[in-house]
Amino acid sequence: MKILVLHGPNLNLLGTREPEIYGGLTLDRINAELADLAAELGCRLTIVQSNSEGEIIDAIQAAMGTFQGILINPAGYTHTSVAIRDALAAAGLPVVEVHLSNIHKREEFRRHSYVAPVAVGQVCGFGADSYYLGMRALVSHIGKSRA
Amino acid sequence: MKILVLHGPNLNLLGTREPEIYGGLTLDRINAELADLAAELGCRLTIVQSNSEGEIIDAIQAAMGTFQGILINPAGYTHTSVAIRDALAAAGLPVVEVHLSNIHKREEFRRHSYVAPVAVGQVCGFGADSYYLGMRALVSHIGKSRA
Amino acid sequence: MKILVLHGPNLNLLGTREPEIYGGLTLDRINAELADLAAELGCRLTIVQSNSEGEIIDAIQAAMGTFQGILINPAGYTHTSVAIRDALAAAGLPVVEVHLSNIHKREEFRRHSYVAPVAVGQVCGFGADSYYLGMRALVSHIGKSRA
Amino acid sequence: MKILVLHGPNLNLLGTREPEIYGGLTLDRINAELADLAAELGCRLTIVQSNSEGEIIDAIQAAMGTFQGILINPAGYTHTSVAIRDALAAAGLPVVEVHLSNIHKREEFRRHSYVAPVAVGQVCGFGADSYYLGMRALVSHIGKSRA
Amino acid sequence: MKILVLHGPNLNLLGTREPEIYGGLTLDRINAELADLAAELGCRLTIVQSNSEGEIIDAIQAAMGTFQGILINPAGYTHTSVAIRDALAAAGLPVVEVHLSNIHKREEFRRHSYVAPVAVGQVCGFGADSYYLGMRALVSHIGKSRA
Amino acid sequence: MKILVLHGPNLNLLGTREPEIYGGLTLDRINAELADLAAELGCRLTIVQSNSEGEIIDAIQAAMGTFQGILINPAGYTHTSVAIRDALAAAGLPVVEVHLSNIHKREEFRRHSYVAPVAVGQVCGFGADSYYLGMRALVSHIGKSRA
Amino acid sequence: MKILVLHGPNLNLLGTREPEIYGGLTLDRINAELADLAAELGCRLTIVQSNSEGEIIDAIQAAMGTFQGILINPAGYTHTSVAIRDALAAAGLPVVEVHLSNIHKREEFRRHSYVAPVAVGQVCGFGADSYYLGMRALVSHIGKSRA
Amino acid sequence: MKILVLHGPNLNLLGTREPEIYGGLTLDRINAELADLAAELGCRLTIVQSNSEGEIIDAIQAAMGTFQGILINPAGYTHTSVAIRDALAAAGLPVVEVHLSNIHKREEFRRHSYVAPVAVGQVCGFGADSYYLGMRALVSHIGKSRA
Amino acid sequence: MKILVLHGPNLNLLGTREPEIYGGLTLDRINAELADLAAELGCRLTIVQSNSEGEIIDAIQAAMGTFQGILINPAGYTHTSVAIRDALAAAGLPVVEVHLSNIHKREEFRRHSYVAPVAVGQVCGFGADSYYLGMRALVSHIGKSRA
Amino acid sequence: MKILVLHGPNLNLLGTREPEIYGGLTLDRINAELADLAAELGCRLTIVQSNSEGEIIDAIQAAMGTFQGILINPAGYTHTSVAIRDALAAAGLPVVEVHLSNIHKREEFRRHSYVAPVAVGQVCGFGADSYYLGMRALVSHIGKSRA
Amino acid sequence: MKILVLHGPNLNLLGTREPEIYGGLTLDRINAELADLAAELGCRLTIVQSNSEGEIIDAIQAAMGTFQGILINPAGYTHTSVAIRDALAAAGLPVVEVHLSNIHKREEFRRHSYVAPVAVGQVCGFGADSYYLGMRALVSHIGKSRA
Amino acid sequence: MKILVLHGPNLNLLGTREPEIYGGLTLDRINAELADLAAELGCRLTIVQSNSEGEIIDAIQAAMGTFQGILINPAGYTHTSVAIRDALAAAGLPVVEVHLSNIHKREEFRRHSYVAPVAVGQVCGFGADSYYLGMRALVSHIGKSRA
Repeated sequence: MKILVLHGPNLNLLGTREPEIYGGLTLDRINAELADLAAELGCRLTIVQSNSEGEIIDAIQAAMGTFQGILINPAGYTHTSVAIRDALAAAGLPVVEVHLSNIHKREEFRRHSYVAPVAVGQVCGFGADSYYLGMRALVSHIGKSRA
Repeated sequence: MKILVLHGPNLNLLGTREPEIYGGLTLDRINAELADLAAELGCRLTIVQSNSEGEIIDAIQAAMGTFQGILINPAGYTHTSVAIRDALAAAGLPVVEVHLSNIHKREEFRRHSYVAPVAVGQVCGFGADSYYLGMRALVSHIGKSRA
Repeated sequence: MKILVLHGPNLNLLGTREPEIYGGLTLDRINAELADLAAELGCRLTIVQSNSEGEIIDAIQAAMGTFQGILINPAGYTHTSVAIRDALAAAGLPVVEVHLSNIHKREEFRRHSYVAPVAVGQVCGFGADSYYLGMRALVSHIGKSRA
Repeated sequence: MKILVLHGPNLNLLGTREPEIYGGLTLDRINAELADLAAELGCRLTIVQSNSEGEIIDAIQAAMGTFQGILINPAGYTHTSVAIRDALAAAGLPVVEVHLSNIHKREEFRRHSYVAPVAVGQVCGFGADSYYLGMRALVSHIGKSRA
Repeated sequence: MKILVLHGPNLNLLGTREPEIYGGLTLDRINAELADLAAELGCRLTIVQSNSEGEIIDAIQAAMGTFQGILINPAGYTHTSVAIRDALAAAGLPVVEVHLSNIHKREEFRRHSYVAPVAVGQVCGFGADSYYLGMRALVSHIGKSRA
Repeated sequence: MKILVLHGPNLNLLGTREPEIYGGLTLDRINAELADLAAELGCRLTIVQSNSEGEIIDAIQAAMGTFQGILINPAGYTHTSVAIRDALAAAGLPVVEVHLSNIHKREEFRRHSYVAPVAVGQVCGFGADSYYLGMRALVSHIGKSRA
Repeated sequence: MKILVLHGPNLNLLGTREPEIYGGLTLDRINAELADLAAELGCRLTIVQSNSEGEIIDAIQAAMGTFQGILINPAGYTHTSVAIRDALAAAGLPVVEVHLSNIHKREEFRRHSYVAPVAVGQVCGFGADSYYLGMRALVSHIGKSRA
Repeated sequence: MKILVLHGPNLNLLGTREPEIYGGLTLDRINAELADLAAELGCRLTIVQSNSEGEIIDAIQAAMGTFQGILINPAGYTHTSVAIRDALAAAGLPVVEVHLSNIHKREEFRRHSYVAPVAVGQVCGFGADSYYLGMRALVSHIGKSRA
Repeated sequence: MKILVLHGPNLNLLGTREPEIYGGLTLDRINAELADLAAELGCRLTIVQSNSEGEIIDAIQAAMGTFQGILINPAGYTHTSVAIRDALAAAGLPVVEVHLSNIHKREEFRRHSYVAPVAVGQVCGFGADSYYLGMRALVSHIGKSRA
Repeated sequence: MKILVLHGPNLNLLGTREPEIYGGLTLDRINAELADLAAELGCRLTIVQSNSEGEIIDAIQAAMGTFQGILINPAGYTHTSVAIRDALAAAGLPVVEVHLSNIHKREEFRRHSYVAPVAVGQVCGFGADSYYLGMRALVSHIGKSRA
Repeated sequence: MKILVLHGPNLNLLGTREPEIYGGLTLDRINAELADLAAELGCRLTIVQSNSEGEIIDAIQAAMGTFQGILINPAGYTHTSVAIRDALAAAGLPVVEVHLSNIHKREEFRRHSYVAPVAVGQVCGFGADSYYLGMRALVSHIGKSRA
Repeated sequence: MKILVLHGPNLNLLGTREPEIYGGLTLDRINAELADLAAELGCRLTIVQSNSEGEIIDAIQAAMGTFQGILINPAGYTHTSVAIRDALAAAGLPVVEVHLSNIHKREEFRRHSYVAPVAVGQVCGFGADSYYLGMRALVSHIGKSRA
């Protein structure tokens, strides 16, 4: 089983950015823990981070036929990108949306997600744990669909 | 470590209700799996289901001093109960909110949660897995707070 | 054929409450006339009045397997209860919603009903006649569904 | 007692139009059943169908002094015609508004009625039964007003 | 003169709950001071606290014929309960609404009160003093109405 | 100078309709007074009343080349007819909009006029005097444009 | 009969200000024509212009007992002053509201008037003629009330 | 193949009306070019223009069984007529909606179309070409449906 | 202890204005009773009434260093004055806002207060008692702050 | 005559993506047919597809001086890109906007287009025919502008 | 070149008021620095501060014919005064609007400015520097207009 | 001191684009003047223009550790990019936002800025001067922060 992990804009800054909200964990560390968890769950990961809406769409399109699911933290594009939503819908793969912070507690404009309606589910508010829980949820979902 | 699990209105019907949305799993089965997971994570559960807003508030109040965290699926009260929100805020325990379905995909009025802003985080859309993921998130959160 | 008649909060006060809107008829009198009409239409009634949202949900849940339809005046819960709506949807029985007054003539917040979208239809504005017309509509609807 | 029955735009198509919503009953059949019911209730009917807002207003105005009540299904004009509302208010006769379908379940713009605030009450969602129930409600209302 | 004092959901927690907002005063202490003030003003009190919307409605209904006024802090139900509003309107007794905190300074959803339009007036923002001022206002209002 | 006077739907009922709002004056009487005033101001009138939106549009179209201005009370079509607005804009004649009642004091939906933005001005709230003042305003406006 | 004429803020600039909207007529000229018309209609005028909301309120309050009506162009305060509205309501005199331009054709925020609901009627869009028509309407209204 | 072409209110004025928006082309000329195009595409036309909402509904209803498609420019009724939408939905024929001007560039209220959701598609902004392109689209659509 | 009492626009008319809402009590009488109450509570008053927003701001600014608190009924400026709010915030003194009527029962635009968020609390709906209760609340609040 | 054809994000997936909405036609096929049509209409095409907002803006800017018009399907950027709108306005070339589906029938957020107000017109709902009709409209528009 | 500098309500308190937002600089100090800057830029200043909306309007009106531009910080009147906006538009002088704080970061109601649409531009968020930058912008703008 | 100057989408077209709004100045000329001003203020500039949202985010991220401030004209991304806002917040450098035109005078959707709440301040409406004033403001702000 192969999973595409997509990190949206500014997530490459993790560990340097607003630590009172996001903690001091770096993206490299999260990626390493995701890889460990993937091994434990019996699947392989490809991990992409980009600040460009167009590159994220390209990556989603390229996932068709190669991956069985997508774990995505769309970051700032969560709230503004119809095009990423359309790409996810077109790819037709199961998608799990994750956020480090509880977006429902933040500014009004962060509470709406264009991605959520095309995702299997959403996990938010648990820091890096959101990724690990989302990975478990995605693998479990794919397993059930195959059964 | 003791956790209070709260199931809101109509969840006792699980397995009989709209199976195309919620699947055929019963609440008893979810509770049994939650108990197994709790044992694995080293904690004990008390599980309450009620259709009454007042009883849910009573249970939340009674949790203070006895439990270290609350896992709640407020169901239909998610969108209408300021009183449950106030009870959770008053109890001062870490709260994780879970939903079987992806509430962001459903009717407009289900997309707003009075509970989310007083919760640590929210997990939704994974069927019964939402509960198990939420339980993991809650235990992990309590563990970190203690450290 | 068995029908559950549900009277929501404050309807036990009928005859004492704001007679310029609701007239002087008591709930006992309406229940007696409903029983006569039920006999004429060949069906039996169980009648419940409660001021508690939770008890109303309990009654709706208990109706499954015993009754063939529900006649409900949700009163003040019409406009605020997602949980009662969910219970009605889960029960899966035909529902007819009635109101003594024409809710479309009153305050803005009384014009929206959470119950209406899960009901077969709505009758409002005819005083106690709303109940009798609603009973006829419900029995006729069940009769057609069986045919 | 004389009653004016008004059918709004497109209702002449009944039986040919979207049968999955409205069933296969024709307007002629409804009119025949209304006439039978009127006889049973001791009153006479005049029945008008028009696709023209102006003609419906003309008919309402002409009703003054001749009829004791109006049973109206304003159809598509329900949601857009202030002029029909004004005509009904000016005529000063008791009005009952009926709809074949449950308008509260359909598109947002069908949930608001300009007519409802000038009507005695509204019956909707019961197919042709909405007309018969509305007729009973209107005759009962006129009877009480006379007493 | 007999007054019913109603404390809504979570007020039993006073003294333990968010002391930076509500101070350390307990409900028992407030009730004792209310009793002293009542004695000074020449009236007797019955005091009820409940977390259940239905029980609060029951208490309001039971007040008719026994009490001359109601002092209520509807707490979380202030913003969501049409049914409590209807009960107060039906009871027909003078009502004074009180809140410990200044609800107009808090979250948007706490600024709307369903109860206010059926109350004589509202006192908020003075901690426990809101109750004592409200009691004075209620007794003064009843005294004038009798004159 | 020739002026077209247009009376919208239900205005033929004047004198019979809600006299507490519109007084007892009939449309015939208003038309007679308008004719007298026209004579005094040196112009001739054609007067049309219709309950049909289409007929009113026809009349407006026919006014081009024959009349120098239009005095219109669009009544219920004021708030709903884009087509009448378009006809007035297309005719290119000066238009004065009048209303018997003060529409800014009535229901919310009566406060918006599709006609106002294509009119020279609006006179409302003076009963029949609104027509006479509007006639003076229109004749004065045409006189100035010619100068 | 004595009439108070009130000109709101910036109207002293008439003739210098945006002539493409308001024309080249000065306020002195309008006042002179108003005086002539008043003489013709058999009444006397007091004319006040002020840029200060407080002074306008003072003038309205002072009108009680001395004047029989108020002709007011509230200009920029039309859309923002609840206090002027309250003063007019308190004075209890008939009020006619006038505007030089057609406010319904201009920016959205100019289409709402706090004054209109406490006025007998509104005349707008006819330049200085709005004042003269408003004066006629006011005198006619007072005459009828006396009869 | 027979096509019904429907021109809504005020389109008979084309060539005289606001030429800076609509150009100088008359409706007769458009109809002649439509006829030529129809001949080229192998179909026959019936062309109707009406200012009356009711007559347009009548024409749509009469189209069933005789025509294979409808080309409609609903003009001012685009934005206000639920009844025309219902007639088109009931007729069940493929509909193409056209507008001379780009309605998305004009006033806010012209940007919403009740007709669009029941049409195959919309062409707007190309002057008379909107009709010719719409005719091609409709004939092509019908051809494909038959295949 | 010195308190500034501020009466906003039109309050000088009390006793003459809309007695069905405000009763027949004059402002002089209220001021006399406030003075008696102040004496009883051991503090001195300065009382200002003004119809001018600017004068009220001047008075608030002048209060700094001289007074320990402000009791204000902003009347019509409650809903429109950001500048008075800013003055109160800048003065930094405890403020209690009072209203004779229950503003939450009146027109929509009277339900929002710019002053409430910078006040300690609000008392409304008790006629002149609102002032006396507000005075008690203010003195009690200052007393506690000093302790 | 040279035309730039711009395909927005995800359109490269055509034929693989949601065939129940978009059919099975590939973008290559559409481009081939567009080339044939261009030859027939006497013009040459350059065709660009990109998932990147920035690249689309670059392409629009580069079109100035080389192309006489732009045919664009902005896809997901239709609803979110002010920058593409600004680029089109800056380029100053005639623009025709096309969509495969009828965007007025889909989710609310797809009904608003930032591009429409800077386009000559819009064609939507006819599948690939929307492109061919849009091409005809654009060539015809350029031809007329040159005449 | 002569410039009018206008300081709105409460700005006389600068240096005493909420120093965490506005800093400790007094208005006298800002005025002195503005005078120095004016000398450097070759222009003379008149400086006015008022808490009264009417006085500010008077000052703006008096500026015509004497000054070549206006530098204004409307403070609390920014968001509520149509009358000041009208005065500025009538005066016809170039206006630059400045704010000490970044109004786009503060409460929702402070983000809208009635003045901005009649100003050349806006400078906000730089404390006293907003004034100096605004002065430079205004002088530069006047210089260019003269060239 | 090093400053990053960021020009958003389409600004490379300056001098060719809509000169009635933006004037004929080219971006090269503005950059040259900015360089002169920077030299005068004792700081060095790096200047970047991009039409790509992702590249702008990359540039902002790269600024950390190298630059002391950012001067940005986000152009079309001002109103749509949460990701640029997040990048600016993450970078933690002082930001000044500038616009050539007065965005508060233009279309509604241009009046909201996602960038403003994370900027020190905003300068708009002064053409190229907005950049020079913004540069002065930024340098002054950095100087003060260092002191």
